[in-house]
Amino acid sequence: MSDNDNGDWKNTTIDAAEAASHPEVAAEVEQITHLRQTIDNIDMAVISLLAERFKTTAQVGVLKARAGFAPADYQREEYQIERLRRIAHEVGLDPEIAEKYREFVVTEAKSRHQRIADAGGDPGVLDIFA
Amino acid sequence: MSDNDNGDWKNTTIDAAEAASHPEVAAEVEQITHLRQTIDNIDMAVISLLAERFKTTAQVGVLKARAGFAPADYQREEYQIERLRRIAHEVGLDPEIAEKYREFVVTEAKSRHQRIADAGGDPGVLDIFA
Repeated sequence: MSDNDNGDWKNTTIDAAEAASHPEVAAEVEQITHLRQTIDNIDMAVISLLAERFKTTAQVGVLKARAGFAPADYQREEYQIERLRRIAHEVGLDPEIAEKYREFVVTEAKSRHQRIADAGGDPGVLDIFA
Repeated sequence: MSDNDNGDWKNTTIDAAEAASHPEVAAEVEQITHLRQTIDNIDMAVISLLAERFKTTAQVGVLKARAGFAPADYQREEYQIERLRRIAHEVGLDPEIAEKYREFVVTEAKSRHQRIADAGGDPGVLDIFA
C-alpha cells in the first residue's frame, strides 16, 4: 500500500508504520515480517557455508600448486555441473539456479584473487573448480 | 601432475588414476579428494537452502501482491546489504562476496520469472529484495 493509490508506485517500505497506517494490510505485513526472518536466517546459513567453502577451495588450491597440478580440473567441473543439477531437482530448486550458483562461486574465486592482487596483497593460489 | 612436465599444462584430472601413475603426489591427491567431499557437502547444503529461500521469497511476493505493495522495498534492500556484510565479516568471508551473493539471488529471482514467462507458463508474482 502507498499514498499513491493509482497502482503506479514502484516502492513500498513494509514495516510496522505501514501496518499501523493501513490496518487493512496488517495481516500481510505480519506474515511478510515472519517470512523475512526465515529469509534472513537462510542467508546467515548460506554466508557461513560460503565462508567455509572458500576456505576449503583455498586449501585445495595450495595442494594443487604443491603437487604441480593445474588449477582447472574439467572432469571435476563436469561432475559438479551434473551433481548440482540433480540435487536441485531433488530439493525443488530450478536447476538453472543451481548452475548459476556454481558459476557464481567459480567467478568469485577468480574475482577475489584479482582484488587481493590489485590491492598489492598476496592472493595466494588461484583455484577454480576445486 | 601431467604428462606435460614443462609447467604449461592448463588442466589436470585429479583422481585415483593420477595418484597411481604419480605416486609422489598421492598424498596431495588424497587430501584433495577429502576436501572435495567437504566442498560437495557444502554445496548440497547451499542448494537446499536456496530452494527454501526461493520458496519463501515466492510467498512474500504473493503477499505483497495481495496487499498492493510494490515488489521493491529499498529499505529492506539496504538492511540486507548492511547485514550480509556484517555477517561476512564475522564468519570470515570477503564482504564483496556476500554482496555478490545478494545480487545473485535478486538477479536469479528475476531471471527465473522471465524464463517461466518465456516458456508460456505462469511465473507467479515477481518479487525482489523479499
